Amino acid sequence: MSGNSFGVLFRVTTFGESHGKALGAVVEGCPPGLTLSEEYIQKEVDKRRSKEFIGQTPRKEKDRVEILSGVFEGYTTGTPIGILVYNTDVKSSAYQQLKEVFRPGHADFTYHMKYGGFRDYRGGGRSSGRETVVRVAAGAVAKRVLEEYGISVVAYTIALGGVVAEKRDLEFIYQNHLYCPDEEAYLKMCQKIEEAVREGDSLGGVVEVLARGVPAGLGEPVFDKLEADLSKGLMSIGAVKGVEVGAGFKAAQLKGSENNDPISSHGFLKNDAGGILGGISSGQDIVLRVAVKPIPSIRKPQKTINLQKEELDLIIEGRHDVSAIPRIVPVVEAMVRIVLADHLLRQLAYLAFQQRLRFPNFWG
Amino acid sequence: MSGNSFGVLFRVTTFGESHGKALGAVVEGCPPGLTLSEEYIQKEVDKRRSKEFIGQTPRKEKDRVEILSGVFEGYTTGTPIGILVYNTDVKSSAYQQLKEVFRPGHADFTYHMKYGGFRDYRGGGRSSGRETVVRVAAGAVAKRVLEEYGISVVAYTIALGGVVAEKRDLEFIYQNHLYCPDEEAYLKMCQKIEEAVREGDSLGGVVEVLARGVPAGLGEPVFDKLEADLSKGLMSIGAVKGVEVGAGFKAAQLKGSENNDPISSHGFLKNDAGGILGGISSGQDIVLRVAVKPIPSIRKPQKTINLQKEELDLIIEGRHDVSAIPRIVPVVEAMVRIVLADHLLRQLAYLAFQQRLRFPNFWG
Amino acid sequence: MSGNSFGVLFRVTTFGESHGKALGAVVEGCPPGLTLSEEYIQKEVDKRRSKEFIGQTPRKEKDRVEILSGVFEGYTTGTPIGILVYNTDVKSSAYQQLKEVFRPGHADFTYHMKYGGFRDYRGGGRSSGRETVVRVAAGAVAKRVLEEYGISVVAYTIALGGVVAEKRDLEFIYQNHLYCPDEEAYLKMCQKIEEAVREGDSLGGVVEVLARGVPAGLGEPVFDKLEADLSKGLMSIGAVKGVEVGAGFKAAQLKGSENNDPISSHGFLKNDAGGILGGISSGQDIVLRVAVKPIPSIRKPQKTINLQKEELDLIIEGRHDVSAIPRIVPVVEAMVRIVLADHLLRQLAYLAFQQRLRFPNFWG
Amino acid sequence: MSGNSFGVLFRVTTFGESHGKALGAVVEGCPPGLTLSEEYIQKEVDKRRSKEFIGQTPRKEKDRVEILSGVFEGYTTGTPIGILVYNTDVKSSAYQQLKEVFRPGHADFTYHMKYGGFRDYRGGGRSSGRETVVRVAAGAVAKRVLEEYGISVVAYTIALGGVVAEKRDLEFIYQNHLYCPDEEAYLKMCQKIEEAVREGDSLGGVVEVLARGVPAGLGEPVFDKLEADLSKGLMSIGAVKGVEVGAGFKAAQLKGSENNDPISSHGFLKNDAGGILGGISSGQDIVLRVAVKPIPSIRKPQKTINLQKEELDLIIEGRHDVSAIPRIVPVVEAMVRIVLADHLLRQLAYLAFQQRLRFPNFWG
Repeated sequence: MSGNSFGVLFRVTTFGESHGKALGAVVEGCPPGLTLSEEYIQKEVDKRRSKEFIGQTPRKEKDRVEILSGVFEGYTTGTPIGILVYNTDVKSSAYQQLKEVFRPGHADFTYHMKYGGFRDYRGGGRSSGRETVVRVAAGAVAKRVLEEYGISVVAYTIALGGVVAEKRDLEFIYQNHLYCPDEEAYLKMCQKIEEAVREGDSLGGVVEVLARGVPAGLGEPVFDKLEADLSKGLMSIGAVKGVEVGAGFKAAQLKGSENNDPISSHGFLKNDAGGILGGISSGQDIVLRVAVKPIPSIRKPQKTINLQKEELDLIIEGRHDVSAIPRIVPVVEAMVRIVLADHLLRQLAYLAFQQRLRFPNFWG
Repeated sequence: MSGNSFGVLFRVTTFGESHGKALGAVVEGCPPGLTLSEEYIQKEVDKRRSKEFIGQTPRKEKDRVEILSGVFEGYTTGTPIGILVYNTDVKSSAYQQLKEVFRPGHADFTYHMKYGGFRDYRGGGRSSGRETVVRVAAGAVAKRVLEEYGISVVAYTIALGGVVAEKRDLEFIYQNHLYCPDEEAYLKMCQKIEEAVREGDSLGGVVEVLARGVPAGLGEPVFDKLEADLSKGLMSIGAVKGVEVGAGFKAAQLKGSENNDPISSHGFLKNDAGGILGGISSGQDIVLRVAVKPIPSIRKPQKTINLQKEELDLIIEGRHDVSAIPRIVPVVEAMVRIVLADHLLRQLAYLAFQQRLRFPNFWG
Repeated sequence: MSGNSFGVLFRVTTFGESHGKALGAVVEGCPPGLTLSEEYIQKEVDKRRSKEFIGQTPRKEKDRVEILSGVFEGYTTGTPIGILVYNTDVKSSAYQQLKEVFRPGHADFTYHMKYGGFRDYRGGGRSSGRETVVRVAAGAVAKRVLEEYGISVVAYTIALGGVVAEKRDLEFIYQNHLYCPDEEAYLKMCQKIEEAVREGDSLGGVVEVLARGVPAGLGEPVFDKLEADLSKGLMSIGAVKGVEVGAGFKAAQLKGSENNDPISSHGFLKNDAGGILGGISSGQDIVLRVAVKPIPSIRKPQKTINLQKEELDLIIEGRHDVSAIPRIVPVVEAMVRIVLADHLLRQLAYLAFQQRLRFPNFWG
Repeated sequence: MSGNSFGVLFRVTTFGESHGKALGAVVEGCPPGLTLSEEYIQKEVDKRRSKEFIGQTPRKEKDRVEILSGVFEGYTTGTPIGILVYNTDVKSSAYQQLKEVFRPGHADFTYHMKYGGFRDYRGGGRSSGRETVVRVAAGAVAKRVLEEYGISVVAYTIALGGVVAEKRDLEFIYQNHLYCPDEEAYLKMCQKIEEAVREGDSLGGVVEVLARGVPAGLGEPVFDKLEADLSKGLMSIGAVKGVEVGAGFKAAQLKGSENNDPISSHGFLKNDAGGILGGISSGQDIVLRVAVKPIPSIRKPQKTINLQKEELDLIIEGRHDVSAIPRIVPVVEAMVRIVLADHLLRQLAYLAFQQRLRFPNFWG
């Protein structure tokens, strides 16, 4: 029941449940001397908060980020950064009825089996999507690290409820609440959401993530390949059911002559590899996509059972989003940043050695 | 440049290059008292060897498995199992011409960048698919572990060169050299291979993997979720560009009412989750699929450059498969087994504690 | 700058500085179903607090323990236990004068060099003994785990300021504020403390730790041997400069015929091994000793320099203990418990496998 | 039963038993571009071989080192270095009588208990000191890494059989087969060995290890402190029962005014800290000492039991050293080098970041 830490040199550990006292993250390995503030982290966390839009939960957590350690007089010190988000808007009574019921598509049954019947059933406890609020906070620290190397990560919605975005208008992403890069698709997605709300149903989708400015050389074959760690990080997000890099599943239908990216004296001529070759970044943009399943909490009646194995028709009222999209978008960014920050540091160790980087000598 | 180990309690470390002296694996965490022989491991490794079929490399490594440690008088001792496979049929001269050329779709460029220009260019060195021979050997040890718990893993080809298998005839898998569960599809796939050989091109495909008998409770939220570790393991295989679990990318198009698996008093009524909920096995079959890109080594001319950034048209002669399928199939099985063996042991630790399992007392 | 986590299955991560907002620990791997309360943890933490005795700092932190996660309705849930202790009695102004001075025997210089000049100088920041308050809290969770297996750990002072305890009166330990098992020695130690206070100096000593009820079989050769992990845990405590197991350094002077512990049909006939053979617990008591250096903060003038390399005579006023003993005693217990809890779970994994422990089957 | 790997970035995994087919090490994280040959490693391994001296085993393993991977055309490639040493001079028959006997002071009993009765009893199997042959080989790779930074490590015998070396004549170390830095003490030690051989007994001792040229800044608080990892590494060597750094156990008797190392504008004025403050190297020499217990295999009769709990008097014939010293000396050096290489790389990661070290850009 370890398994709540991620990374080797840049390492994130999280704790906390949906309706517990607080959620927290410990971020190890952030180098010293970086400016970092609660405001900076808050900004990222706010991207994940539910907004005043149809289809988003009315649960309005303020999600106030507190830095408890690792930052002194505005600068990181190289020691672990403790981050806390207290749970405030907790309505646990709504979950009382669910105490002994296994909600389909949720982790109720598996948590029950794994933890021998001991679980915080309120809002899914540890399995709640709410856990990701501190991943986003940790990802903000990773963002600060990557900024220093000119590496940026952006995720956006390229499919929702069957509507597929054709365009990649990265400007438009921040002009719509679904983080969609295609205005036409965005409008159709909104319609799908309205339909789903009416039906008491939920929607799945696809999020694409793009990392730019990543230098060639990140990734540690043969197991800690860059795409392997990225996949692990992304697949560890609750609603994600698939990950692909570059051409991904489409590559399965291609021939080598089509899929290979030719190289000219100025660089690669296309990027079906998604910026990674042999587990190592190539210097091109890194492109991944994740499949997001529809939120399992729906108002439509569903067949299920309770602890006593009695069958029943479940209607979930509570406060729920219609889709993990768009709130999963900053979580995807966070996980990619955490992986890249870790691999940046890992490669820097060797790069420094290759250049026989000198240690500072105090005595001169 | 660590990153060559995988797992927590059941832990595999590999070493070796395609044209070096030998490839090896160290398997830690195999419990004592299991029968294990070179023959048992050899049988798995042989599944990965190239066969006398069109489209497969004439490089005929005998791939003789040697156990160096950890097994005594036919039984495992609980100490690390060292496994070695010497390289014998090494024709490095064919690679002399490739010494300073970056083959498109291969890791030549990224290895060059990561390792500061020091790399064993022969046959791709460490980045070669040949490295997987010892993964399969390690996977055989994991298979022995899982057998004791009635857990079986089988992988098979469900798409190749655009041909999609509709059936899941698991008997038929071992009656054809592509490990395809659909006879009709198999015949079409063979045609595709012949075409590709004629054209000097290569093919991608999709492999599905099915784990049966997995008890509920394996997987360690929130980062070492079962699908997260499975994804990492599978994505660390050279040619894999995508992983999905259960409905996978199809789930992105479904509604919650469609995607959720209802539960009756006798069990789940379907399995779109792919046997994992909230990162923990549910007791249902575990189902994953991986996208396999076409082999990058093709005879068709490709644009690329050499170390001096001179452009050239590359025709790769050498000895190459037309597709990573079917030889990747036992590698997929091996990685899934390694992950399951590790998580089986991890959960057993807690299960034992919950039951206050007693230690043997020698003194009585 | 990772390195703030310890353990494999039972895993502790800490964060926080002496004069920061709070100190925290995340405890992963505590099995579900154990009763656990803030009171239980508080009791252990209180053992570490300074008391109304001569030679102990008047800094009177209340050290209120808060459990933020992982416990629900009084029981552990198997999810990570977040523990927080807010810093309240913080007088940072006393440290203002030390901002640019390297205190001899402290980590000021090395932190300055390692972290590129960015450090929280107040009270030693992360290097402060105060960090151990959350180690003790985490150790309390480990204590709960070990209790279920009848394993107990007790540490006590066997030397202080040159006075050596001859007796091992374990009852007396809790009847004196130095946790000394020898009344006569205790009284002499008190005199030594008074002298040191008068002189403005500080004292070193030796703490012995005894683990009883440990079953045979804990420890993972060849690197994670039980004494290796115990040594790491103990050496990671600030003031510790040496660790020995069983006969320890005395064994260096013995012959094999003296040092070997003979075995009879009822058990070992003595215990110079200290309960560990070949890295694995033997079922006997585990006995270790740690050398504790004198507290480096003293009122006597000391030669040192500041950031500008100017020499100066330093007199440290502030609020300081005269010795890390006795407050280090519960820290030693905590670290030993954390190691034992981890190795207990690791061995249980294999023990469960050897017995083919069955998983619960919900469906019957 | 994992636990056979050590290190984070520079990571060593070992396998193999005393009388099995071979012993091996996998060294991950060695940077590319270093010259490395079997001869270089062999030279270190030869230091550990038994010599033609009284008190050393006549078992004369050739201990031929083979590099299987990770080195190409004389240079490391950054990929894992597989190292093998075949066992050749194996006389297992001598151990047949010991199959069911628990030798006092050996790991026979604890291995029996841990591994459920499955163990390779020949020569102690995995618990044999012979396992260290590949630690020394791995340490040779670490030596190559450290050389590039001008870091050197030397260990030597400062006590044997009660004789204590007063001098530290580092030149003399290589002029005597006990690696003793004091000629007078050396001669007395030789007498002690002769006595012990005559008596059929064995001797313990103390080895000191000195690391010079270590830059300030290595070590990762609060758990992976430099002395913590060094202690773990050293305590994982079979015969070691105690570790101390700097003044060590003597510090327990000192006052702060005595133990603290004053600092002048030219550096520290003494080195009782042993080169480490707060878990981080200070730039001074690193000094540690380990207590080595007497070899448990002696010809004198010892009381013990067999598997059936029958008591017996055991006389161990076989081929055995009289002391783990001097053959443990190169093992101590190896472990210290492995730890330093790992921490060198870990700190380089952050140093590189602090200097915003630029990645090479192929495209110009």
